[in-house]
Amino acid sequence: MKDFISVKQLDEGSFYYIYELYKDYRDRYKNGETKFSDLKGYSVLLPFFENSTRTRTSFELAGKILGADTINISASSSSVKKGETLYDTIKTLEAMQSDFIVLRHYMSGAAHIVANKVKSRVINAGDGTHEHPSQAVLDAITILENKGRINGLKVAIIGDILHSRVARSDIILLHMLGAEITVCGPQTMLPRHLEQFDIDFVTTDINEALKDKDVAIFLRIQLERQKKVFFSTLNEYSIKYGLNQDRIDLLKEDALIMHPGPVNRGVEIQSELVYGNRSVILQQVENGLFTRMAIYKFLLNQ
Amino acid sequence: MKDFISVKQLDEGSFYYIYELYKDYRDRYKNGETKFSDLKGYSVLLPFFENSTRTRTSFELAGKILGADTINISASSSSVKKGETLYDTIKTLEAMQSDFIVLRHYMSGAAHIVANKVKSRVINAGDGTHEHPSQAVLDAITILENKGRINGLKVAIIGDILHSRVARSDIILLHMLGAEITVCGPQTMLPRHLEQFDIDFVTTDINEALKDKDVAIFLRIQLERQKKVFFSTLNEYSIKYGLNQDRIDLLKEDALIMHPGPVNRGVEIQSELVYGNRSVILQQVENGLFTRMAIYKFLLNQ
Amino acid sequence: MKDFISVKQLDEGSFYYIYELYKDYRDRYKNGETKFSDLKGYSVLLPFFENSTRTRTSFELAGKILGADTINISASSSSVKKGETLYDTIKTLEAMQSDFIVLRHYMSGAAHIVANKVKSRVINAGDGTHEHPSQAVLDAITILENKGRINGLKVAIIGDILHSRVARSDIILLHMLGAEITVCGPQTMLPRHLEQFDIDFVTTDINEALKDKDVAIFLRIQLERQKKVFFSTLNEYSIKYGLNQDRIDLLKEDALIMHPGPVNRGVEIQSELVYGNRSVILQQVENGLFTRMAIYKFLLNQ
Repeated sequence: MKDFISVKQLDEGSFYYIYELYKDYRDRYKNGETKFSDLKGYSVLLPFFENSTRTRTSFELAGKILGADTINISASSSSVKKGETLYDTIKTLEAMQSDFIVLRHYMSGAAHIVANKVKSRVINAGDGTHEHPSQAVLDAITILENKGRINGLKVAIIGDILHSRVARSDIILLHMLGAEITVCGPQTMLPRHLEQFDIDFVTTDINEALKDKDVAIFLRIQLERQKKVFFSTLNEYSIKYGLNQDRIDLLKEDALIMHPGPVNRGVEIQSELVYGNRSVILQQVENGLFTRMAIYKFLLNQ
Repeated sequence: MKDFISVKQLDEGSFYYIYELYKDYRDRYKNGETKFSDLKGYSVLLPFFENSTRTRTSFELAGKILGADTINISASSSSVKKGETLYDTIKTLEAMQSDFIVLRHYMSGAAHIVANKVKSRVINAGDGTHEHPSQAVLDAITILENKGRINGLKVAIIGDILHSRVARSDIILLHMLGAEITVCGPQTMLPRHLEQFDIDFVTTDINEALKDKDVAIFLRIQLERQKKVFFSTLNEYSIKYGLNQDRIDLLKEDALIMHPGPVNRGVEIQSELVYGNRSVILQQVENGLFTRMAIYKFLLNQ
Repeated sequence: MKDFISVKQLDEGSFYYIYELYKDYRDRYKNGETKFSDLKGYSVLLPFFENSTRTRTSFELAGKILGADTINISASSSSVKKGETLYDTIKTLEAMQSDFIVLRHYMSGAAHIVANKVKSRVINAGDGTHEHPSQAVLDAITILENKGRINGLKVAIIGDILHSRVARSDIILLHMLGAEITVCGPQTMLPRHLEQFDIDFVTTDINEALKDKDVAIFLRIQLERQKKVFFSTLNEYSIKYGLNQDRIDLLKEDALIMHPGPVNRGVEIQSELVYGNRSVILQQVENGLFTRMAIYKFLLNQ
C-alpha cells in the first residue's frame, strides 16, 4: 500500500495498526517529546486545489513535527486547468523528489488517478464528493477512544449524505469496523441506490435517526457543492435537522456528538451545544494531528 | 503573563527584561550564531485575517530562527465569518497543540477575546484600531538603542492618531517609559477625549509638533481604515503633514525619524528622506526580528 | 559574484563548477543523503511578484533540503506598487537579515536593480521578459547529462523568442558553451535586431528549424505577456509550430525534446508526445531541484 486514497484499502488489521502508531505518537507527544525525526530528509508536498484550513494545517504540522520538509501549493480552481494538467502537476512534484503528496482536489477520483502514475506516496486529503479517508480514520479513532470499541455501536450520520465525502468515508470505515449505520437527511440529500452503500437504516426523520444512538455525526452543509437549494432558508434546515437539547436527549446518555468542522453554528448544531459536554468536536481536531502523523508513518513502514 | 495582547501588560521591569533578551539574541546572531533551539519542538501558528508582509514575515522568521515549526494561515475577511468563527478557528488551532498563536485580525479586541479561551500563548500582531504591541516594543528598543534612554525624551507622533494601532501602542509604552508625547494630525484624526490617553500635547500644526523633538514617528496613512477621506488629495496631506527637509530642521539635531512601514513615499515622508541620515526606519525592521525572538522567549519564560 | 541575475555572469569555468556542485548534491541525494546542513542558519526569502508553482517550489525545496529557513512572500501585481516599492520591499527583507532573496518580478531588470542595493545575495527567478538564469543552467545541465557535451550541438528554440526570458537565457548560455542556436517562431515573435543576440540561424519554418537538430526546446505560449494575439486560434499555432510525430522525425534520431513547463498540451507539443521517449521534460524538473541547490552553494562559496 503505497498510497492512502480510500478507506476501502483498510481492513481491521491495518486500521488497528494505524491506531497503535497514533497512540504511540500521542503519548510521546503528551509526555514532552514534541519533535521527531521519522520523516527527516523526507519532503511532503501539499497541492490543495480547494481551500482548506484545518486539513491542510493538520497535515502540514504533522509532517513538520515528524521532521519533514513541507511545501504548500495552493491553486484556485480558476487558475488551474482540469484533467491532464493535474497529472502534469503531480508528475512535476514527483520529479522534485517528493516523498509524500497530500492532495486535495475538487474532482472525485483525482487522488486515485494520479497515485498510480507516480512513485511518490499519495494521500487523499479530500477528492470531490468521493472520499476523505484521513477524516474517517480520525473519526473512528475518536469513537474508539471514548467508547472503547466500535463494533456494535449505533452511529447516526446527519446531513447531505449524498454529496459528503466525509459521510462516504465514515460509513465505509465504521461499517467495516462493525458499527450499525443510520443516515438521515432531506430526501434529496440521501443516496437513491442504498444497496451500493454500507448503510443499515435510512430516514428523513432526525428524531428517529438519533434515538438510542451511541454516536451522532453531523455533516457540514456545503451550499457550494449542492446543485439546488432545497430549503428556503438555512433556518428551515436547522429546524428540521439541526441539533438542539431536545434531540440530544434522544441519544443514549453517554453518546458522542461529532462534526468534521467548521460548524455552521446554529445550522447543523445549536451554537451553545457546539462544545457542550457530549461534543468531541475539538477532540476530533486534536486526534486529527496525531492520526495524520500515524498515516505518514504507516505509509513509510509499508 | 501567558499572552502578549497589549503594551499595558508591560511595566518597566518586563520591558527591560525583553530588551535584555533582545540584546542577547541580537549579539549572538551578529556573532554568527544564527540558529537556536529555544523553540525546538514548539509550534507557532500565524492566523492573519488581514494582509501583512513585514509583521508576518518577521514573526515567522523569528520563530524559525528559534527552531519552531511555523504554519501560515491566511484568511481574507471575505471568506471568514466574524465573531464566533474566529473563536472556533482559534479553538481549532489550540486543539492542534499550537504553542503560540500569532494573530492579526481586523477587529479591535480580537486577540484579547480569544486569549482567555485557549491554553496556547496568543500574541497580538495587530487587532483593528486597537493595538500592535510588538511594534511598540521594537520602536521603544530602537529609540533606546540610539538615545541610550527613553525617560525624558520628547516624542512626536504624526498622522491618523485616532485609527492607528501603532500610535496607540507607542503612546502607552513610551509614556510608561517616561517619554513626553506630542501627537499631531488633522483634527478629524485626533482623539476627542484626550484624558483617556497618555498624551502630553496635541496639535494640528506639524511645525509645532516637530519643534525640538528627539523622536518623530510618522504613521502610515491607511485610507482603507478611515470612514471618510478628509483631504481632497494625498498631496494635500503631504503638504500639511508630510516630512520634508525644512521640517527636519525643526527637530533636535540628532533626532530620530521613524515609520512602521511601508512608507507611502511622498505622502508621510518625502521620498529622498525615507532612508536619510536621521531615518532609523530600516533599523526598526532589523530590530523587529530580534524583538520578536525576544517576545517568544519572554512568554516561554513566564 | 554576490548575486545570480543573468547567465552573462557565467563563463565556462563557473558553469562547470556549478555542474560539479550539482552532480555532488544529486549523487549524494540519490544515495540516500537527503538532508544537508550547508545552509543551516541561513534564511532564504522568496518574494514572488508573479504566480509560479514550479520555480518557487523548486527553490523553496532546494533551500529546505540544504537546511535553510525559507519564507514565501507572494504579492499580486495589483496589491504592490511599482518602482520604489520593490526597492523598499527588498531593503526590508535585507533588514530582516535575509541571506538569500529569490526574486521573481514582472519587470525586466528588477533583480539587477535591487541586487546592487542590498547585502543579501539576490537570485533572479525570472524578471519580466529579460532572464530566467536558473532555468538556463538546468537546461544546459540536462543537455550535458544526456549528450555528454554542449559544444558543437545544434539546438533549435521554438516559440515566442522575443518575449521569452527562458529563450533569452538559454540562447546566451548555450551559445557561450559552444552550441549552434537556431530560433524559430512567427515573424512577430522573433527579434528584429538579430545582431544583438547570440543566434546563428532564424527561421519562421519549423520544419527547417528542427531538421538535424540535437536538441529542440519548445517555449510556453504565454498569451498574457503578448501585446497582440497573432493567430486566430491556438490551434493554428499548434498546426504551424507545435510538435508532432512527423516533426520529431526531422530531428536527429537521439535528439532531446525540452520544455520549461507547464506545457500547454496540444499547443506547443502534441499531448501524447509530452512525456514521449525523446522528451526530457521531467528530467528538467528533477535537475532543476539539484541545480538550485548548486546555485545556492555556488553563491555561498564566492
